[in-house]
Amino acid sequence: MQKRIRTYGITIGTRETGKLNKITDVPGVTVGHCTVRGEGHRTGVTVILPCEDNMFRSKLVAASFVMNGFGKTTGLVQVDELGSLETPIALTNTLNVGLVSDALIEYMTEMCERDRVPMRSINPVVGECNDAGMNRITERVIHKEQVMQAIRLGCVDFDEGNVGAGTGTICHDLKGGIGSASRVMDIAGKRYTIGVLVQSNHGCLSRLQIGQRMIGQEILRKRAMEAQQECDLGSIIMVVGTDLPVSDRQLKRIIKRCSAGLAHLGSYFGHGSGDIMIGFSTANRISSPSMPCIRSVQMVNESALEDAFECTAEATEEAVLNSMVCAEADVCLDGTVVESLSKYL
Amino acid sequence: MQKRIRTYGITIGTRETGKLNKITDVPGVTVGHCTVRGEGHRTGVTVILPCEDNMFRSKLVAASFVMNGFGKTTGLVQVDELGSLETPIALTNTLNVGLVSDALIEYMTEMCERDRVPMRSINPVVGECNDAGMNRITERVIHKEQVMQAIRLGCVDFDEGNVGAGTGTICHDLKGGIGSASRVMDIAGKRYTIGVLVQSNHGCLSRLQIGQRMIGQEILRKRAMEAQQECDLGSIIMVVGTDLPVSDRQLKRIIKRCSAGLAHLGSYFGHGSGDIMIGFSTANRISSPSMPCIRSVQMVNESALEDAFECTAEATEEAVLNSMVCAEADVCLDGTVVESLSKYL
Amino acid sequence: MQKRIRTYGITIGTRETGKLNKITDVPGVTVGHCTVRGEGHRTGVTVILPCEDNMFRSKLVAASFVMNGFGKTTGLVQVDELGSLETPIALTNTLNVGLVSDALIEYMTEMCERDRVPMRSINPVVGECNDAGMNRITERVIHKEQVMQAIRLGCVDFDEGNVGAGTGTICHDLKGGIGSASRVMDIAGKRYTIGVLVQSNHGCLSRLQIGQRMIGQEILRKRAMEAQQECDLGSIIMVVGTDLPVSDRQLKRIIKRCSAGLAHLGSYFGHGSGDIMIGFSTANRISSPSMPCIRSVQMVNESALEDAFECTAEATEEAVLNSMVCAEADVCLDGTVVESLSKYL
Amino acid sequence: MQKRIRTYGITIGTRETGKLNKITDVPGVTVGHCTVRGEGHRTGVTVILPCEDNMFRSKLVAASFVMNGFGKTTGLVQVDELGSLETPIALTNTLNVGLVSDALIEYMTEMCERDRVPMRSINPVVGECNDAGMNRITERVIHKEQVMQAIRLGCVDFDEGNVGAGTGTICHDLKGGIGSASRVMDIAGKRYTIGVLVQSNHGCLSRLQIGQRMIGQEILRKRAMEAQQECDLGSIIMVVGTDLPVSDRQLKRIIKRCSAGLAHLGSYFGHGSGDIMIGFSTANRISSPSMPCIRSVQMVNESALEDAFECTAEATEEAVLNSMVCAEADVCLDGTVVESLSKYL
Repeated sequence: MQKRIRTYGITIGTRETGKLNKITDVPGVTVGHCTVRGEGHRTGVTVILPCEDNMFRSKLVAASFVMNGFGKTTGLVQVDELGSLETPIALTNTLNVGLVSDALIEYMTEMCERDRVPMRSINPVVGECNDAGMNRITERVIHKEQVMQAIRLGCVDFDEGNVGAGTGTICHDLKGGIGSASRVMDIAGKRYTIGVLVQSNHGCLSRLQIGQRMIGQEILRKRAMEAQQECDLGSIIMVVGTDLPVSDRQLKRIIKRCSAGLAHLGSYFGHGSGDIMIGFSTANRISSPSMPCIRSVQMVNESALEDAFECTAEATEEAVLNSMVCAEADVCLDGTVVESLSKYL
Repeated sequence: MQKRIRTYGITIGTRETGKLNKITDVPGVTVGHCTVRGEGHRTGVTVILPCEDNMFRSKLVAASFVMNGFGKTTGLVQVDELGSLETPIALTNTLNVGLVSDALIEYMTEMCERDRVPMRSINPVVGECNDAGMNRITERVIHKEQVMQAIRLGCVDFDEGNVGAGTGTICHDLKGGIGSASRVMDIAGKRYTIGVLVQSNHGCLSRLQIGQRMIGQEILRKRAMEAQQECDLGSIIMVVGTDLPVSDRQLKRIIKRCSAGLAHLGSYFGHGSGDIMIGFSTANRISSPSMPCIRSVQMVNESALEDAFECTAEATEEAVLNSMVCAEADVCLDGTVVESLSKYL
Repeated sequence: MQKRIRTYGITIGTRETGKLNKITDVPGVTVGHCTVRGEGHRTGVTVILPCEDNMFRSKLVAASFVMNGFGKTTGLVQVDELGSLETPIALTNTLNVGLVSDALIEYMTEMCERDRVPMRSINPVVGECNDAGMNRITERVIHKEQVMQAIRLGCVDFDEGNVGAGTGTICHDLKGGIGSASRVMDIAGKRYTIGVLVQSNHGCLSRLQIGQRMIGQEILRKRAMEAQQECDLGSIIMVVGTDLPVSDRQLKRIIKRCSAGLAHLGSYFGHGSGDIMIGFSTANRISSPSMPCIRSVQMVNESALEDAFECTAEATEEAVLNSMVCAEADVCLDGTVVESLSKYL
Repeated sequence: MQKRIRTYGITIGTRETGKLNKITDVPGVTVGHCTVRGEGHRTGVTVILPCEDNMFRSKLVAASFVMNGFGKTTGLVQVDELGSLETPIALTNTLNVGLVSDALIEYMTEMCERDRVPMRSINPVVGECNDAGMNRITERVIHKEQVMQAIRLGCVDFDEGNVGAGTGTICHDLKGGIGSASRVMDIAGKRYTIGVLVQSNHGCLSRLQIGQRMIGQEILRKRAMEAQQECDLGSIIMVVGTDLPVSDRQLKRIIKRCSAGLAHLGSYFGHGSGDIMIGFSTANRISSPSMPCIRSVQMVNESALEDAFECTAEATEEAVLNSMVCAEADVCLDGTVVESLSKYL
């Protein structure tokens, strides 16, 4: 049983969480990891499966927002154009994006063949962080079998910390990883969930702040040393899932608010950092009739987004903290130990 | 009765036009002009009224696309963020955008007071072209009364050519102006209309081509001279109205296709040219309840856009030609005569 | 002498400030206000003058970034296309944007006539916040003379708080206004300044946090009441000036980091809020020869931006706090008193 | 010796071409193909090498523009953020993007190891068109060795038509492929080149127009049949290279004008079509010092872009025609013959 940030008595924001306080509180969503840990390698792949059925046959409303594009995430061009998602979202290390996106193509090809859905074009979405401090990244050790395993192991109560795509990441100079959180909100008597999952690999220690605690400064003092590497290197991928019935434009507005949660912890979206948000809604699934037709969709009114924004900012902040406290200390390729935030709480 | 391009035996594209072959074929849309013509002034204002009722109370789905942003169009920031339009669209000369947008604010303020709709913020949308060749533009002669007159004179069968905001514009080195066209398309047995209205002020003569005729070259030969001013100066504003039930993202995809119609006539979107598209749909009007709620909207499927794209490209091309053939020759401030395209057909 | 946030012993970040700790630490920049305060009106105009000479003849590198576009800022289309600024930046109330942009046109027209610079097109940049709580906004009381006065009064050591465009604004449910701050950084032994000026009108009280203090919660407890109006309404305009030699793309990256400073105080960029950044650099002024030519420009390398990002985030956070503590309590149109943050420090 | 469009007496535009009238007229640029042609496969890969030396060590100014994002091109997020290109550009079929981008990573990894340039992150740029009509696309037959071969075979006087990534593409319902063209322009007595290379896979026959000839309609009449598949399916990738010293923003403005050339041939950027432009400049190479510093770069003034725009539009139009006339007829997987445009000229 992993100790998450709330077990330390730290609560982020005021909004109610979902049951598990994870992205999988959104009905239908599961998450699976494949962790690669060996001589010279701390890396892996994490797959967010937004639904159980064939996503190519019945797509999801989707959006992306790039706060800092110094990153290699793939698939966003089509997500932006069509406002839809047709594959699971995979996260991995920077140099493995090509092979992982190829594996997603294979996975969807097989599924479509099985379901007898004609498919000759598919847009895999793959995010990444650079784990080269702990992983011989140019070797690209994630192949099709790791991706398939992550998908197979998809579940609701998934692990956080240094697992999957978070195995080798570093966040605010402490151990980063995969983290998640969720918030719920009501509209006209019905409950909706917004969940966030992050792959955290950003930030510098000196600026880390948790609520009222300047904990980054505290740690630096304990370590009795100056902050050496004080630039905000590395990336963060933030995946937002929801069952709110929103348009792709509204969803883009929602996921932008991840950046508020991030900044609240002390990040300023450093130069070397790909800060990228990807969102999907499980409402209003989109089938693709070849004939022109008109369909009916549900849509929240714009002022309902106010709550969604706050939920997203809070869940992102908590997801980053969960990614950190659930991660155990680990060792870089050069022998440096990267401590866990949990040591200092 | 104005002679439009079809009276010359020239047909653009293959798609069926609406009844009037104007943007006002979209039910509810009207257009009004106020023309200012006097010593030193050829200018005016044209207002596109997308509906008859209060647009602030019940907004329209809207989108914009900027092909070339060397222009002063105002209001697009909010259109892009919220995907909605809450005032009529006014077109005028470059330096009059401020006063005309202030007049739109006044018009909407009065309407909201009359309708007892609380209003403390409104986003006027005003496009512009530079008519400084024919108009002492720094004098900014369009004021509130001209805008109100244009609104008052709004009608379905409006004039084209050098009227309203097109009074002083120049297109492909011939007289430009206001022009319009429309196309119809069927989805599941129901008919929808896409209408375009342009304020044309772009292009160079040597590249003007109408269907199979390199007419720009022909005219240059007739004039027995080299093209002197051969750069593609000036702007074009393209307003697209439709009753298709589309999302703002889909509408943005539709209006982008105006650029195809433009290029088909020989434009390459010259440097000094603000090429800007603004679109609205009269379907799925948006009221603004302050309470969060869920509403149902109609939406075409994505492949239905194929027809809409072709309709938009064709209607834009024809609208530009109508703006030119309906415009009579006029004289620049420096005495140069700008001929009408109609002279050469 | 106004008491700024540092006089309360509160320091934001670790970076060195400029001499005045204002945007005017950037050489050549001045700021002027015109405050309108009377029966039913708390409003005004603030003008940022990036340089002393004719900006149309010699433009500045510029960029904009829209975090939330629910706002009426004008001029950004051309700023984005050409990466340049050719007028001062004026800030005012939402419904006065048209008249103020017309006044900027007049100001530039007169300057260009005086300087014998041919000018027939100009792109005024005007930002706004909605001060309707304290101002009968539909009356639009800012006219040409107020804008001209603000320009005339431009100086280096300008006032903050409820002056100029900040006269009627509300921030985190306390009195907002105009605020500024600056940071300096060194590159290759040379010192550069990044200054920020904000018109603050955003945020909700419950989330306001200053460093380690959850001051919004404290105030709510003192007031012994529930937060009534808890949504993040209203806007913030953030103007960034610098003498760093940057390209427009680099400048856009820099100004995006204003959002980190904002979020660090507790904002999540609420729905009803236009969060808009506008930046300019005084390096690499752009003259506009009509003949094609090649010129030489200076440009920082990309990794130098890391420092610039941190400077911008810190200066924005401090500028917002200065806008609040320098503002005195004032009364809304409905009689509600809006307190100053200074009361609680 | 391939017959290009000019050998048919057809001249596009009025501007002077480069020596070979190919993108390789830009000094340093080479292009290589690997063609895969066998039972069930007509596909391949084409690589544009912008320079001879290590692009990761010394990057190129770059830009992208997405006219229609229904496509899987990868690498654009970072190109947009940093305005630079650090790998060759590879073109292939839709489902091979992952493997080809992985191969580019391997190629750059080896080069950097050889050159002793530390590299732990690289942004491969790969464009694609869907050749599923002629290629069993789900089999993804392009692997590392095909990419390496294409790179090895890079040369100045490369083939056009159905080679490399154009082996299986279809354009305006005729055989498409790889095509190229170039234009030259002078600035202050110095000559600059703009080259375009396209992978053409877009458009419908009925709208194809070459100059004054409605050739699509002619062909349809000859075939004595109705246009069956009349929608504008498929994509086009347009790569623009130049030695003009431009900023990334200016380059983005230049490459946007590819769409004018495309539309002039009759395209309206159909729904199912990823119309994507990628550009690079060989001027102002960017080394990446880790220390902040200031460097000097050359930059054309904005009005010099007017010529560049026209050059780009013309070269794109001619490149598409070259891709078509150089391609020989070929057979689809279902036995349908796709004719060459050359048959009808």
